[in-house]
Amino acid sequence: MDFSSKLVGQAVDEVSRLPGIGKRTALRLVLHLLKQPQDQTVRLADALIKLRTQVNFCDTCHNISDAPRCEICADRNRDRQLICVVEDIRDVMAIESTGQYRGLYHVLGGKISPMDGIGPGELTIQSLVQRVEEDEVNEIIFALSSTMEGDTTNFYIYKQLEGTPVKTSTISRGISVGDELEYADEVTLGRSILHRIPFENSLKSS
Amino acid sequence: MDFSSKLVGQAVDEVSRLPGIGKRTALRLVLHLLKQPQDQTVRLADALIKLRTQVNFCDTCHNISDAPRCEICADRNRDRQLICVVEDIRDVMAIESTGQYRGLYHVLGGKISPMDGIGPGELTIQSLVQRVEEDEVNEIIFALSSTMEGDTTNFYIYKQLEGTPVKTSTISRGISVGDELEYADEVTLGRSILHRIPFENSLKSS
Repeated sequence: MDFSSKLVGQAVDEVSRLPGIGKRTALRLVLHLLKQPQDQTVRLADALIKLRTQVNFCDTCHNISDAPRCEICADRNRDRQLICVVEDIRDVMAIESTGQYRGLYHVLGGKISPMDGIGPGELTIQSLVQRVEEDEVNEIIFALSSTMEGDTTNFYIYKQLEGTPVKTSTISRGISVGDELEYADEVTLGRSILHRIPFENSLKSS
Repeated sequence: MDFSSKLVGQAVDEVSRLPGIGKRTALRLVLHLLKQPQDQTVRLADALIKLRTQVNFCDTCHNISDAPRCEICADRNRDRQLICVVEDIRDVMAIESTGQYRGLYHVLGGKISPMDGIGPGELTIQSLVQRVEEDEVNEIIFALSSTMEGDTTNFYIYKQLEGTPVKTSTISRGISVGDELEYADEVTLGRSILHRIPFENSLKSS
């Protein structure tokens, strides 16, 4: 695309580097900013710069945090013997919003994926093994998505933890609450039946 | 959404102000930036600030430009008697990329739309009338989209120009080149037939 202004061209180039945003969408966003008051753009740029330069990652669980230790790790009321292994901050937010989990987290920062050049060294797996060895951890819950990469990562961590007394578990898979059986895929429905739970337990959970 | 970091929360808030970007997409973009080298975010913020503070609008045609006069208006080789009226810079880019137009432009900055609170005063219509009165303009081409707002705007400008000797025309509507007749909508096909052109003319245009 040929812009009548170099400044517009540069802004469109930079915005279109973001994932899922092409040149046309970038131009639409840039023209929108030009129509808005100047301080909106200043606030946006400022928030991005502050985010990128000042944000911290928790030393313990690698969650994004403003302090060297995140609020969850610093919370004395949480069960310190329980660690839930997740891929990124969005999973922490999703689990926190259920209100059903009172343990700690460990944010891996991705999944093992040779296709994308991500090996175990790129993730925070070593730090997790260290936590298990040094702290009094009783159980590790795997909460990665059930893709090939997720399963590989789970298995790699499981192997790394062999020899330690820690228990490992994985979140249950099954038909979503409220879903119709007839529309469920066979793999999920099959697992739902294989991993059925005593009926009394299902009464407790809600 | 409840973020573990205020900086992330602020960045997501600002990014999600952009049109078509919700909180979830904003969070995805923000987390992407956190994974990229710091200078990508710096370049993005810098480009946006520079754009918003330094960009100019051409004094004559209101196109976006780095100088007080845009390249098209400053080009002595263009036909100065012909002005094409468009809604925004994207339309200028679209027409320029055809390579078929050698006149000047006039960027309105929008269309008359009482629903969105945009009256003739918000647009650069007065400046267009002034150009017609002061410069030697021979013909005005309306190239707004053929919606109700576009038609209203065309008609308003047409009325404003009554009494001046300027000719007004509108871009032709019809079946797209390469399209099948059977899939065309009736209004477009109807206009295509009503506004048919001599066959010899169609041989010249390609």
